[in-house]
Order: sequence, then structure tokens, then C-alpha cells
Amino acid sequence: MALADGGAKLSAVNHKYELAARPVGLPKPTDWSFQEEPVREPAEGELLVRVIYISLDPAMRGWMNDRRSYIPPVAIGEVMRALGLGRVTASKNANYAVGDYVYGALGVQEYTISKGSGLRKVDAGAAPLPVHLSALGMPGLTAYFGLLDIGRPQAGETVVVSGAAGAVGALVGQIARIKGCRVVGIAGGEEKCRYLEELGFDAAIDYKAGSVYRALQQASPKGVDVYFDNVGGETLEAALSLLARNARVVICGAISQYNSTIPPKGPSNYLSLLVNHGTMTGFVVGDYVSRWGEGLREMAGWLAEGKLKSREHIVEGLEKFPETLLMLFSGENHGKLILKVAEA
Amino acid sequence: MALADGGAKLSAVNHKYELAARPVGLPKPTDWSFQEEPVREPAEGELLVRVIYISLDPAMRGWMNDRRSYIPPVAIGEVMRALGLGRVTASKNANYAVGDYVYGALGVQEYTISKGSGLRKVDAGAAPLPVHLSALGMPGLTAYFGLLDIGRPQAGETVVVSGAAGAVGALVGQIARIKGCRVVGIAGGEEKCRYLEELGFDAAIDYKAGSVYRALQQASPKGVDVYFDNVGGETLEAALSLLARNARVVICGAISQYNSTIPPKGPSNYLSLLVNHGTMTGFVVGDYVSRWGEGLREMAGWLAEGKLKSREHIVEGLEKFPETLLMLFSGENHGKLILKVAEA
Repeated sequence: MALADGGAKLSAVNHKYELAARPVGLPKPTDWSFQEEPVREPAEGELLVRVIYISLDPAMRGWMNDRRSYIPPVAIGEVMRALGLGRVTASKNANYAVGDYVYGALGVQEYTISKGSGLRKVDAGAAPLPVHLSALGMPGLTAYFGLLDIGRPQAGETVVVSGAAGAVGALVGQIARIKGCRVVGIAGGEEKCRYLEELGFDAAIDYKAGSVYRALQQASPKGVDVYFDNVGGETLEAALSLLARNARVVICGAISQYNSTIPPKGPSNYLSLLVNHGTMTGFVVGDYVSRWGEGLREMAGWLAEGKLKSREHIVEGLEKFPETLLMLFSGENHGKLILKVAEA
Repeated sequence: MALADGGAKLSAVNHKYELAARPVGLPKPTDWSFQEEPVREPAEGELLVRVIYISLDPAMRGWMNDRRSYIPPVAIGEVMRALGLGRVTASKNANYAVGDYVYGALGVQEYTISKGSGLRKVDAGAAPLPVHLSALGMPGLTAYFGLLDIGRPQAGETVVVSGAAGAVGALVGQIARIKGCRVVGIAGGEEKCRYLEELGFDAAIDYKAGSVYRALQQASPKGVDVYFDNVGGETLEAALSLLARNARVVICGAISQYNSTIPPKGPSNYLSLLVNHGTMTGFVVGDYVSRWGEGLREMAGWLAEGKLKSREHIVEGLEKFPETLLMLFSGENHGKLILKVAEA
């Protein structure tokens, strides 16, 4: 096995986090099993990827539950699923050359053997590498298609987004501004709210500071035309109570409910949809796979023009995975949460 | 005042039910006030209508609450709002002649003075009069636009409707059959389920007989493409759990929740919309007012061809109003519930 690029030696060892148990509530250290194994040589058609950045996303919590969903759950004893960006260090696949940067479900580990399906080559010159996990990665595509295809915001409308300082939310708000909307962001804490103002949001609501309903009512005097929900729970209820006629509610996530040990709270005022001729639509970014190219081109253009800012929160060290993942649920991260596990 | 047609004498008296108190839970007899008053002469531009049939609808329960909705609540001391069909017995309005049959919000009373706005003339020869409150009235238009415009059923898809033996539900199922769908109806009791089978439903589920979820799973092996919800609560949750990809949920009502003294139960599994790229849309028939003519023409055609059956449950006597209204919530009515208060 000829390993080029200094990325891995013949004797390289892979470290990885496997799912050891299905979490009840927040994932505990004992829900993970840290393993090492020799890195094997890629077989015909395969490539070996040195993982550089691992994307930590709220959706990962859902993949840990043994429940029918848009993709199968991670099995006990399987390496934890995660998106990541890495460099090809050996290849027996004609589509990938040593040195290529790739983005895909590389897992919470240092090396990945792949057949190449589900990977996407990344133009490392187009933007700093972490941006390819953020505005030019899954969060960017999620914001782009969720807002534009489902939310269909029109200039002058009021767009409200929760989890607004998060990876997806901050992009949703900025895209809505580009489209000429009045944008209200809901986030936790003063610092995050200041960040939203820096990004050009018209109003920022600190959900920890008081009644979200009252603050949202004040910030949306004409009602909410588009609500992009990342959090669920009481924030979703507040937005539903304030819908404008023909409002569109985009269900992207429900981070407030992911670690609940009781069934998620359903929005008790969902009949606001009836009263206001509103619609509530859920999606995952995979629903738009055939249009990812279109989304990436437009997002890259906005980044290049300075209309869109991408922010990443990078933590170093694979061994920090269990505690770093929890930052998503405590809201400690500022921007797209990424674990760096090797030098680019 | 020249009253023609024997409908009312100069000394005619109107009897009416006013809202006396806002109900907590099911409306009680003391929530109503039965009043009588002399019938006054119509002023210039007005017409006098002798009410013949009063439409009793689940939506009336919502109008009794002091809550922001698609129309203002009925005020305390105001005649209870209800759709109805009557005959013009005196007119100083050029658009209406004595003898015309009209349909509109006539109220729970024997005579209505109207300026004509919001009334629609009815072609009494086109169908028996009660059908104009049923398949050719608000329930028919609700079924037509809710199913076709929001549900958008395609031939071969599975359409599920709750409250399926009710005024709207029975029409929804029949229209879905006309469109070539597999139709599953959910209703309470064996007799209602037999009725659904008579109407050509492919499957009928008695929600009183056991787990709706399990029965619905069996009846919808490919999942639920369109769910038309009239009831809310656990039935909505069961349907959400069984959505097919790109499913459409039509929120028409939530009769299981209307008399609840605690906040309505929200669907705790609404994230099924996310997993299945589903959409949930609410509406009231008034959202489609500009297209009512189109709906009525097509419904009348299907009735004439025998493809659609309209069923009415008629109770006689204005004084039976309070107890008859409750039949909607106990599910005792079979077909569109109508109160007959005068001879046609």
C-alpha cells in the first residue's frame, strides 16, 4: 500500500468513536466506546481518506435513537455517523486522486475507507476548508433550500428564525436579508443576539431574557410570514400564535426536544394553521440532493460578494468529541461546531 | 309592510337563541338565552328571510370562544351565528325577490333581516333544499377545496379521512374515490363504518374498536399520502406516524379538542413532517370564496351523475337547538346535521 502525502504511514492507526449504548436524554461518556484499529489498505474501487474536520450537528442526536427516520439509526458498535472533510491519502478509485479534498459522511474517526459514493469533491481554493462544512456544506444547503424552496420569502415579508446564531439559523437570516425581508432572530443570550445584529438582522430576541411570545409580537407587528424552526417547543408555539395570513412554517429541527426523555411536546396551537391558512412543512437537506449544485453556486457567490458571512467554532482533538457534541445542546457554540482532528 | 307568501304575518314573532355565556367545555343549556321579538319591517336595501333550515356545524363551537380567529367570536347577547337556508318573504333590495331561496349566515332564529351581503341565491330546483346545506353548501365546498387544492390527491394514492361519516368527511372520501385514490375512513362505531363501505370507501376504521394506529397501518400498507383531519388528537398522531414521502396533511378541524377545558393536544410527532418531507396545511372554506362557483358546479355534476351521495340528518324544531348541537360532539348524527324550523 503506497500512502502518499505524509497523511498516513503504512502502520497508521485509526481512532474512532463507536456508539456503545443508546442515550437516554443527553449522551453520556458511557454511550461511547473509543477504539483503535490498524488502517487497512483500500481495496479495488476504494479510497482512503484522512479526516481533517468533523462536523458536529444536532441531527446526530436523532441518528442515535433506534427509530424509523429518514436514514437508519447508527447501530450499536458502529462508528458514529458524522459529516466531515478530509484528504484522500490513497486511492484505488478512478474518480479520486491522492490529495483530493472530499466532504461526506466520514464518521467520528481519523481515517475512512470509502467506495466514493456519497462523497463530494471540494474545491479547497474556493473558501477556507471549514467553510465547506458550514455555509458551503450541509448547513448552508439546509438554510438555502429550507428557506427559499419551502419558506418562499417575498421582499418585505417578516421572516423569523430560531436557533438564529446556530450554523443553519445564521445563514437563514442572512439569506432572508438578501431577499429583502425583515428578519427576526431568536437565540440564547446577549452575546448571540449582538452577533445577529452584526449580521444585519432587524431584531434579535434573547429567549432566555423573558417571554418569547411577547418579544416576538413586538418585533413582528404585521405577523410572521415565514417561520424557520430549528428548536421546537415553546418557541414554535409562540411563532404559531403570531402567524400572518398564508404563513409558511419550515420545520428544520427541534433541538429543544432531542434529548427529552418524554415524547416531544407537540405544538398545542397548531390550529393557528387553520385560522391563518398557514402551512407547516418539514424537510431534510437530502430531499434536495439533485439541486445541491445550484445551492452551492449561489451560496459561494454571496460569500464572494461579502453578502454572506460564515462562522465556525472549531474545537481541536478527536478525544474531545463526547463533550464537544454536548455544546450543541447547551448552546455554548458560536457558529458551526467543528472538531478538528488533523492538520490540513 | 306587505308580507307575501304566507311566510309571516304583519304580527309575526321571531324566536331566537342568543349566546348567554361563554361555554366551558360542552355548551350547557344556561349558555343560551331563548328570546322572542316582533319581526320588524325591512328598511330600504334590506330583505326579510324566513329561515327554513339551520346548519349545525362543529365550527360553531369555535365561534363561541372569545378568541382571535378567522372571524370574530359571537358576542354575549348576540344571536348565535349559524348558516341556514330560507325564503325571502319581503324585500326592499333589488337583488332579491319574494320567494327567492337564500343560503348564508342567517343565525339560530326564525327570521333574519339582511342587507343581502354574504347571502347566496339557491336554485331550489337543482337539488332537494337540505342538499344546499350539505354537498352543495359549506361542507361540500370545504371537502372539495380542502381535498383537491391542499391535499392534491393523485390516482393510486392513499387518502385517509377522519370524521369520515360526518358532513365533510363523507364527501372528502367520495371525491377521493372519484379521483382514483384508495380511501380509508375513520369513524366512530360499526354503523358509521358500514355506511362508509356503502359509499365505496376501500376501508373503514372504527376508532372506538381499538388502536387507530394499528388499524390504519394495516389499511395503509404504503403509508398515508393525504390525511384530511377533522378530529385532531390521537387520530392525527396516528396518521402523522404513518405518512408516506411527500405526504400532505389537511387540517380542516379538530372536533376532539373543541370542548376541551385544557389547551388542545398538539401532535407530539409533528417531526414526522421533517422525516417524510411532509406538509400540514390549515384552511377554512372562506379562503376559497372566489372559487366557490367552480366547486359548486363540479359537485352538482357529480351529484347528478350519481357519483356523489349527500346525506342529511334533520331534526325538527328550533327549541331543540341546544341539545341537537351536542349531537355533533357525541357523534350521534348520521350525515349533515340540520335543524328544520319551518316548512319549505
